[in-house]
Amino acid sequence: MPTFSDRIDGLRPSPIRTVLSVVDRPGMVSFAGGLPAAAALPAWSGSVGPETLQYGASEGEPALRRAVADHLHALGVDTTADRVIILSGSQQGIDLVAKLMIDAGTITAVDDPTYLAALQVLRLYGADFTGLDDTGLADASLAYVVPTFANPTGACASGPERDRIADTCRENGTVLFEDDPYRELAYADVDRTPIVARMHGASWIYQGSFSKTFAPGLRLGFMTASPDLFDRLVMLKQAVDLHSSRLSQQIVLDAITGSGWQDRLDSLVDFYRDRRDGFDELLRTYFADLADWTSPPGGLFFWLRLREPMDTRRLLDEAVGRGVAFMPGEEFYAGPPTLGTMRLNFSHADHDDADRGLRILADLVAERFDRRGS
Amino acid sequence: MPTFSDRIDGLRPSPIRTVLSVVDRPGMVSFAGGLPAAAALPAWSGSVGPETLQYGASEGEPALRRAVADHLHALGVDTTADRVIILSGSQQGIDLVAKLMIDAGTITAVDDPTYLAALQVLRLYGADFTGLDDTGLADASLAYVVPTFANPTGACASGPERDRIADTCRENGTVLFEDDPYRELAYADVDRTPIVARMHGASWIYQGSFSKTFAPGLRLGFMTASPDLFDRLVMLKQAVDLHSSRLSQQIVLDAITGSGWQDRLDSLVDFYRDRRDGFDELLRTYFADLADWTSPPGGLFFWLRLREPMDTRRLLDEAVGRGVAFMPGEEFYAGPPTLGTMRLNFSHADHDDADRGLRILADLVAERFDRRGS
Repeated sequence: MPTFSDRIDGLRPSPIRTVLSVVDRPGMVSFAGGLPAAAALPAWSGSVGPETLQYGASEGEPALRRAVADHLHALGVDTTADRVIILSGSQQGIDLVAKLMIDAGTITAVDDPTYLAALQVLRLYGADFTGLDDTGLADASLAYVVPTFANPTGACASGPERDRIADTCRENGTVLFEDDPYRELAYADVDRTPIVARMHGASWIYQGSFSKTFAPGLRLGFMTASPDLFDRLVMLKQAVDLHSSRLSQQIVLDAITGSGWQDRLDSLVDFYRDRRDGFDELLRTYFADLADWTSPPGGLFFWLRLREPMDTRRLLDEAVGRGVAFMPGEEFYAGPPTLGTMRLNFSHADHDDADRGLRILADLVAERFDRRGS
Repeated sequence: MPTFSDRIDGLRPSPIRTVLSVVDRPGMVSFAGGLPAAAALPAWSGSVGPETLQYGASEGEPALRRAVADHLHALGVDTTADRVIILSGSQQGIDLVAKLMIDAGTITAVDDPTYLAALQVLRLYGADFTGLDDTGLADASLAYVVPTFANPTGACASGPERDRIADTCRENGTVLFEDDPYRELAYADVDRTPIVARMHGASWIYQGSFSKTFAPGLRLGFMTASPDLFDRLVMLKQAVDLHSSRLSQQIVLDAITGSGWQDRLDSLVDFYRDRRDGFDELLRTYFADLADWTSPPGGLFFWLRLREPMDTRRLLDEAVGRGVAFMPGEEFYAGPPTLGTMRLNFSHADHDDADRGLRILADLVAERFDRRGS
C-alpha cells in the first residue's frame, strides 16, 4: 500500500456523492442534494470565438469581476473589481480558504450543524472545531459562517447576531469566512446584509455562487477578501486550476448583465416560494405527529427534528430501497451529532413526487417509531 | 496579521502569473506561456439544455469517461471508464495528487528542471525533492514525471529510460505520477508509450489534457490511476469543486468523438511543426553565438542554454520593457538552478512576431555578455 499523506487518514466517502449516485435511478424521489428544479434551469445557445477558448487570467474575466464587484458594493461589502476572484464553484473557495488558514489543530469556529462539505474540507486540512459563541470565536483563527439561509437548517441570522459575530471576530483577530450561496433565494423580508460588511478593516473573506440562481453545471462562483488576504488567495487559485472556464464566465456575464436578470431572480424566488409552501403542507399532512420543523425564510431546505431520537443515517439505505433519498442530519455536525434530524431539499422534486416521497419517508419513520415503542 | 497555515510560508507569486499579466499589452511578443496559437484554437457554437446545466457526477460525464478510457486503452494503459476522472484542467490533477501523497518532508522524485507549477504545488504541500536516478526513485514516496516532450526542456525519454523508471518505481513501491499534456504534439517518430503502461500492478497515476489539442479556456483534463489510488482521488476531486463544467465536457466530447478529430490533430501537428522549424531558423539567425539548443521532437518549447552563465530572472524586466516576455529557466529547478537557461514558447507568436521578439532578446543577451566581458 502506498504511503498516503497524513490528511488522508480522515478522508471518508462523502454522503453527498453516495446519495448523488442513486438520484438518477428511474422513479427515485430525491430530497437529498441542493439541486435546482429542472424547470428553473436556463437553456443556453450561442457561439464563442478562439479568444474565449485561450488561457485566461487566474482572477477571472475583467468584465465579470466588475459586475460582481458592483453587486457586492451595493450590498455594503467593501470591495472593488481588482479584489474579486472568479471561482470554479464555491466548493473551490472552501478549499482555498482551508489551504490558506488550516494546519493540523487550527481552531475553526463553525455553526453546529453546518454545511457538511465544508466540514469535510476543513477536517481534511486538520481543523479542530469550536462553536460560534463568543468563547469559540475568540479561540478560533478562522470562523466559517453561512448566516443567510444556513445549510442545513435554513436559519437566517438576525441583525444583532450578525453584529455580534463581526464584532467578536474583529476584536479577537479571527478571520471571518462568510459563505453566501442562498442569499438571492429569500422568501421573506429578513436582514441579509453580509456580516463582512460590518468588519470595518478586519480580516474577512466572502463568497457567493451562480449555482443556485443560474446553473450549477457551469461550476462558477466568486470570492472577495480583505486586502491582507486577497493576493495569497489568488496565488492559491492559480495553483489549483490556473483559472476558471472562460466559456462559463462568458455565459454567466451575459446572463447577469442582461436585461432579464432581475425578472429571472424574481420568478425564481416566486417559483421556489411556492415549492416551499407546497412542501410545508405535505409535511403537515405526513409528518405532523412525527417531527418538528419551521418553514425556512429562504434557501432550499427543510430541517426536520424527529420526535424520537434515532440515527437517520441508518434509515437511508431502507429509504433509498423504497425510492426516496434524503440527507441524514447527523452528517452536518462538527461535534457529536444530535440524533434524529433530516435535511429535506424542497426545490428539486415537483409536487407529485414530493407527495409520494414524503409519504414513503413518513411511513418508514413511523414504522421505526412503532418498533421502538413495542 | 492573520495566522496563516504553515504551508503559506513557502507561497510565492508564480512567474507564470506575472508573465501572463503583461502578455496582453499591445505589441508584446510572448515566448513565455505554453499558449496555443490563436489560429489553432477552435470556435464553437451550439446550444445546451437544462440537463447539461444541472449538478453532475464528480467523476465526470459517463460518455466522456468512456471515450478517454478507449483512448488510453489503445495506448496500453491498464484502465477502464470507471477508473477515469474528468479534471478541471491538469493543474488540478497535480493539486489532487499532492494532497493525496505529500506531507511536510515527503520525498518526491522529479526531473530537474521540471514544470514549475508542479514544483510550486508540491512545495506548497511540503515536498522535499530528489532526482529521477535510481537512488532518488528508491528514496521517494512519489515520482512526478513528464517523459514525453518535457516542460521545460522538450526532451522525450527513450524506451529503455521509460522501462528503468517503471521498474525502479515498482521495485521500491514508489507511486509514479505521469503528466502527459503534450503527447499528441509529436513532430518526430519517437517512443511515447506511457510509462504507466509498464507498471504491471504497481501504483500509478496518469493524466492528460485537452488544453493543447483543443481549448485551454474550457479547463478540461483527465486522470486515471491504479485501483488502490483511484477512489481516494475521486473523493479529493469532489472536495475541491464537486465536478468539472458539464458544458466544457459536452463540447470536448463532441469534438473528440466527431469525425474531424484525427484531421484536427494532424493539421495541428503540421502547423506546430512548421512553427517549430521556423523558430529554429530564427534562433540560428540570432542566437548562434549566444546559446545552445536542440530542436524539440514535440511539445511547445525550445530550451536555450546561454554560453555565459547569468541569472535570466534578472533579464526579464528589461525584456518585458522592450516588448518581449520569456520564461527564465531558473524557475524550473527543484534544487539550485543552473544559471543561464531560458524557456521559449514557439507556438503562440507568428513568424514576424517571433523574428522581432528573438532579435530584441538576442540583442539584450549580447549586451549583457559584452558588459560582463568589458
